[in-house]
Amino acid sequence: MTNQGSAALSDLPADLSGLVRIETSDREAMLPIVMDMMRSVYPHDQVFGKYCTVNEYINCPPDEVFRYLSHTLSLEEWTYSLRGFAPTDEAGLWLSTDRLGGETYLRTVAHADARTVDYHCAWDQGKHLWMVYLMRVVDARTVLDVDGSVVLWTNCHHPFYDENPYPETVPAGRTEWVGDLWEMFGPGHQLEASNLKAICEYRWANNLPVTPTWMSE
Amino acid sequence: MTNQGSAALSDLPADLSGLVRIETSDREAMLPIVMDMMRSVYPHDQVFGKYCTVNEYINCPPDEVFRYLSHTLSLEEWTYSLRGFAPTDEAGLWLSTDRLGGETYLRTVAHADARTVDYHCAWDQGKHLWMVYLMRVVDARTVLDVDGSVVLWTNCHHPFYDENPYPETVPAGRTEWVGDLWEMFGPGHQLEASNLKAICEYRWANNLPVTPTWMSE
Repeated sequence: MTNQGSAALSDLPADLSGLVRIETSDREAMLPIVMDMMRSVYPHDQVFGKYCTVNEYINCPPDEVFRYLSHTLSLEEWTYSLRGFAPTDEAGLWLSTDRLGGETYLRTVAHADARTVDYHCAWDQGKHLWMVYLMRVVDARTVLDVDGSVVLWTNCHHPFYDENPYPETVPAGRTEWVGDLWEMFGPGHQLEASNLKAICEYRWANNLPVTPTWMSE
Repeated sequence: MTNQGSAALSDLPADLSGLVRIETSDREAMLPIVMDMMRSVYPHDQVFGKYCTVNEYINCPPDEVFRYLSHTLSLEEWTYSLRGFAPTDEAGLWLSTDRLGGETYLRTVAHADARTVDYHCAWDQGKHLWMVYLMRVVDARTVLDVDGSVVLWTNCHHPFYDENPYPETVPAGRTEWVGDLWEMFGPGHQLEASNLKAICEYRWANNLPVTPTWMSE
């Protein structure tokens, strides 16, 4: 119906670097490229260095998991060490304590249509929330043919993890920086995703509200 | 302001299995758990077996990349082998040819607020679109402190990859099944994400429309 076959990429140089398409790299040309990228094992830094993604299946409906995650106070339950949440004077901005580090400012941005929940956070100051936890809840029926949810969770290696640009906000005496923990984010987040799974699955299986009433009061 | 500290998890058994929180597993107890999950290398199946995620940075604004991806016809350009898209009689359902396999039915679901683009696909039949490509475009300024986009892309290992539940729809003579390729999805999708990067970056850098006019006509 359309002539997109000839229109596709017609505005680009024919030899544009980085393109691997069947027209110019047939199966025989592509296979060694892909095989060369495949490994029996991948180093930690390739898997968790630039982007840190963990995924978890949860036997609880996606709308329930999404609703729970979209409440900032849920972090009090399923994270390892974020505790004592209180609202600040700025609408939507919370202050909590990371018991591994210090004061953590936090804002939750959720989109119900796509079931995304992003936690924008920072230690010490709430003006620039550069630590972003990108989460999404997917219907497991659609993607795994089972009831429940799949939670996707990615953090990107923001340069501030490597160097704190706001040293003047560090409390006296604290020597640690959140970025010192980056190497452990993969397994650390997997552990927290397992917490999330255990909590949601128990409540759902036992007919308890997945989002407790105290949270939404 | 709230007593969430005492309310948190108050409806759950204190010894709920699978929970690792600082109250019951302090830093000294947690560290060996996390260290035990960390590896210098991770086997292919752990990285790409159940979930296949690739991420790519693209030096092109997120709204541009999102708009491009949300056009089904963009797949004609950045995928390795999906070609010849035509609409079907069913609204929003497209038919294309995977030159590595066969007829591919496809429906694109995009949410602009969260910038998610999901391609729901299947080989051979368009009634049950079980192959789902979950993509999301993120503002790289927010997560990496640079202009541009980060594209997150996850496929989940749906059981139909392992066994085609609609063998009666397979064209005579075709012996391959899309799931035979699952092992290669990691590097294969990385290669396609690189195509996407090359195309968007070239157009953006050269003041060309990132979404070509023929695509949106």
